[in-house]
This record gives sequence, C-alpha cells and structure tokens, in this order.
Amino acid sequence: MNFTIRAATKVDCKDISRMIMELALFEKMTDQVKISSEELERDGFCPNPLFECLVAEVPKENKSKQGFTTVGYGLYFYTYSTWKGRSMHLEDLYVMPEFRGFGIGKGLLSTVAKVAKEKHCARLQLSVLDWNAPSRDFYAARGAQDLTIKEGWHLIRFDGQSLDNLGNDAQKK
Amino acid sequence: MNFTIRAATKVDCKDISRMIMELALFEKMTDQVKISSEELERDGFCPNPLFECLVAEVPKENKSKQGFTTVGYGLYFYTYSTWKGRSMHLEDLYVMPEFRGFGIGKGLLSTVAKVAKEKHCARLQLSVLDWNAPSRDFYAARGAQDLTIKEGWHLIRFDGQSLDNLGNDAQKK
Repeated sequence: MNFTIRAATKVDCKDISRMIMELALFEKMTDQVKISSEELERDGFCPNPLFECLVAEVPKENKSKQGFTTVGYGLYFYTYSTWKGRSMHLEDLYVMPEFRGFGIGKGLLSTVAKVAKEKHCARLQLSVLDWNAPSRDFYAARGAQDLTIKEGWHLIRFDGQSLDNLGNDAQKK
Repeated sequence: MNFTIRAATKVDCKDISRMIMELALFEKMTDQVKISSEELERDGFCPNPLFECLVAEVPKENKSKQGFTTVGYGLYFYTYSTWKGRSMHLEDLYVMPEFRGFGIGKGLLSTVAKVAKEKHCARLQLSVLDWNAPSRDFYAARGAQDLTIKEGWHLIRFDGQSLDNLGNDAQKK
C-alpha cells in the first residue's frame, strides 16, 4: 500500500486527537485522556511549539472503514540529557490496526529519527508498556536498548494532589 | 543549616557541570558524560533554552571541604503528554553528600514542583535507578507513583549506531 509521511499541520489535529484516543484505548487508559483537538492546535502550532508531529496518509481509494485517510502519527518533542545534551522523546507512535503490516510504523519511526539526527539529538527515547510485546519487539529489532531492563531505570510521576502538595511546600517558605 | 534556592545563571554552569559528574559517579556511569560547562551555558541560557535549572547555596562559613558553596541542583525541562498536555521532566536532582539531611533536596524538589504548577504542568516526571533505594523512598514518601511498577512502563533508547541506522532508512526513500 502506498503511503506518505509529512509534518502535521493545524488541520490534522482532529485526526491526531482521534488517534490519541484509539492508542489510549489499546493501552487500556482512555480515562486518562483529557486533551482536546483545540489544545493540540494551540500547543503544537504556535511560535514555540510544545511538540512536533508527523502524520501518515494513504490514498483515498485505500481509506479506512470509517473513511479516514490519515492513518498514523508520530508525536515527539525535544528533551535534554545532562550527559549528552539535546535529545528527543517520542511520546506516541501509532498506526491504525487495519493499516499495520505495510511499513507505516517503520516509516514514521525512521522519519522521526531523521529529524532527531538533523537537529543533532544524541538520543531518541520513548516509553513502552511491558505487556505490549509487538511494540517492544518492533523497537528491539531496530537496535533499541531497554534501559529499564539493562540499567534499572524506573519512571516516577507526581501529579494531582501529590504535585499540589509538593508545590505548596515551596510556597510556605 | 541555612540554604537558599534560586534560578541558575550562566556563571553557575561550572558548578552544575561539576555536580553532573558527581551524580554520574554515584550512578556508576561517568563514562557516559560528554557534556561540558560551555555546552550547558549555550543550551540553557539562550532565547529558547533547552532546560532550566535551580541551584542550592549555603553561606560561605558552611562551604564544602573543597570550598564549594553551590551544593545542589535540580535541572528540568518541559515535555508534552498527549493525554494531559504540558508537563515537566526533572532530569537531575542532586545534593552533595556532605550537605544531605538538611532538607536541601526537598527544597529543590518542592521549588521545581512550584514552577511546574505556575507553568500549568499537569505532571512532574523523572527516572530513578532501581538500586537507588534512598531516592525511590524519598519520592514515594512525597506521593510519587512508580509507573514502571504500577503500569509497566519501560524506558527505551536509540542512540549511536541504532539511531544512525534508523535515520538513514528514512533518507533512502
């Protein structure tokens, strides 16, 4: 199947928003999704965007059962390593189930990596769920290291009440 | 012991660079540190900085054995969640061993959280090594969730040859 990969524009935010929810459904965490298409427009398509995004498109004759031609996305942003300098984090990589097996995910990932190289990023990192074996295999087959297994890194989060409490501690001083 | 926490400036980069190496020594990964004080100045103190940093200072009479008064730092940057929007990542939190137990680490962490709240970040995230029990306990005691244990998230990295190979795949097309 033919497909093209290009930088997302504002008008793609409805499709990206739809696929963010599809990905969360697969990850069994739809209750956590609070972002809207309008917020994506505001945050990603402004003078200092908080993220960048690529989308994958198929020709109209190959549209999905529901009529979509934007069938995948890769959303990333720039981070910083105090060991290596400028780096990149791939927040989401997603291809709609009916379009898997055509190399679209690989195309999105390699294009993200190309941008990372062009922007002089020393690393491209991402997080994956332990039970998501197809994704873990997909990254491992392309030479990625699992740093949680190899070095023992754990992901830690403050949010909601724990983040409020922490911030309030500082304000008391 | 008295201490103050303030935003880092360009002249702090030598101290930050020194402490980055001290932290890497503790994490047993000094071979991975490639960043210089000059690169920190360039990347963190420009119109669109790649990171922000807080430093902790003690009075001259409490200086370290080697004569340092800048004894801790917290280095962070902004990220993006496709579920929650603008977020923050705390890349490093460090207090020199001889200055631990005075609340400096807690002061740095709560000030980072305060900035996160002011900048409307829904989350404050960080990574910690599994064998670093004191740090894991420190975060857990303040209400942090360990998402690697709770939800199964693994940290994945492409760098060096694997990142080059990926990027080259895209360029062939």
